[in-house]
Amino acid sequence: MEKTRLGGHYLEKYDEELEAIRNRVLSMGGLVEEQISHAITALGSGDVGLAEEVVQNDMKVNGFEVGIDEQCSQVLARHQPAASDLRFVIAVIKTITDLERIGDQAERVARMALQLARKDRPKNQYADVVSLGERVLAMVHGALDAFARMDVEAAVQVARSDVAVDNDYESIMRQSITFMMEDPRTISRAMDVIWAIRALERIGDHARNMCEYVVYLVKGKDVRHISLDQLEEAALGKKPG
Amino acid sequence: MEKTRLGGHYLEKYDEELEAIRNRVLSMGGLVEEQISHAITALGSGDVGLAEEVVQNDMKVNGFEVGIDEQCSQVLARHQPAASDLRFVIAVIKTITDLERIGDQAERVARMALQLARKDRPKNQYADVVSLGERVLAMVHGALDAFARMDVEAAVQVARSDVAVDNDYESIMRQSITFMMEDPRTISRAMDVIWAIRALERIGDHARNMCEYVVYLVKGKDVRHISLDQLEEAALGKKPG
Repeated sequence: MEKTRLGGHYLEKYDEELEAIRNRVLSMGGLVEEQISHAITALGSGDVGLAEEVVQNDMKVNGFEVGIDEQCSQVLARHQPAASDLRFVIAVIKTITDLERIGDQAERVARMALQLARKDRPKNQYADVVSLGERVLAMVHGALDAFARMDVEAAVQVARSDVAVDNDYESIMRQSITFMMEDPRTISRAMDVIWAIRALERIGDHARNMCEYVVYLVKGKDVRHISLDQLEEAALGKKPG
Repeated sequence: MEKTRLGGHYLEKYDEELEAIRNRVLSMGGLVEEQISHAITALGSGDVGLAEEVVQNDMKVNGFEVGIDEQCSQVLARHQPAASDLRFVIAVIKTITDLERIGDQAERVARMALQLARKDRPKNQYADVVSLGERVLAMVHGALDAFARMDVEAAVQVARSDVAVDNDYESIMRQSITFMMEDPRTISRAMDVIWAIRALERIGDHARNMCEYVVYLVKGKDVRHISLDQLEEAALGKKPG
């Protein structure tokens, strides 16, 4: 938060409010990470109870979004934050939108886990899907960590790992379509897998968005809609190579 | 905007800035509507040039998002808006996130139009997909209109129409999967259609989000993550019957 402000009771309360928001975003992030983790475990193991729990818990994620948005509005109205504090509040408003949508995608994976639990399981027990899930979970964890530590370098690194996620996704997608063509009886199952990996791929995109807000927060630069190389240059001030 | 403020040079400039933001959101909305419209026309007619234009123009949509976000940050920093003005700025920050993602989905439809243009066309020329596209375009138009006129009643009506969009989507989805099972040679085409209708269905969701921000803006109530009946009651203060 701003280091240049004077102390005093009023400002202490202000700092406390910003700190409370920060902690609540991290709690929301922790819940969302748990949702992803449970959803992919349920998919890999066919654990129906765990999948149902994920579906149930999505409303908790939604509750966080509404509550944190309300806190941000109050801070804006009461304290008129400026400079880096204002960027912090804006970054939070955007981050929790992505976190909430990551929660929706985790719920979607859990719903596909429920569908797949009723069907014959392939020999590999969806190991490739689980591995993609672990990759995107690591991205979300990394993005939250970069946010907590305001670590631009880590944010850039996490954003870069989205490329590997997209590659994994494309590879499972191609394979699923091949299976469908070879044996139309697998179409229904392959479609469930496709929706699950699509949801996981979207989680990677949202994690990348969160990394862009970290750069905005720390550097004051809007780095959306640019290439990864441009992002790295804007964030770290060096040409990647 | 706030009606209770005193006049004067400073506040006139403030009002002008809020009005400029409002107009820019509507311009962004107009561009996004055009993108959806062109994408579904391209898909229905197989017009490759038009589809390519949509893909190209997505960066204009992105540019609007970045520019409006910047204007909002400046207004927050310079004028410390309160009450309904603050809600307006927050509603804009959220609305343009959805508009930008609608733009992404329109681009996705255009990319599927490019894929489908190379393949045999079905007898109905994708009339069902085009009709779904027209429905979601009407939703986006209605949501922008409700925003421009701060019309809560219209916002509720548009949100309600998302149900019909979801039904259309489910119906085309079931049919596509049936076609795939009956004739695996149609799998590749059916998958393109599925990605296109999925993108259109997501546009409907984003339009519904925009309607929720209109209710927040006008009524100061957060109506996300609740049922349509609860939304109507919160927005219009009456039990739907």
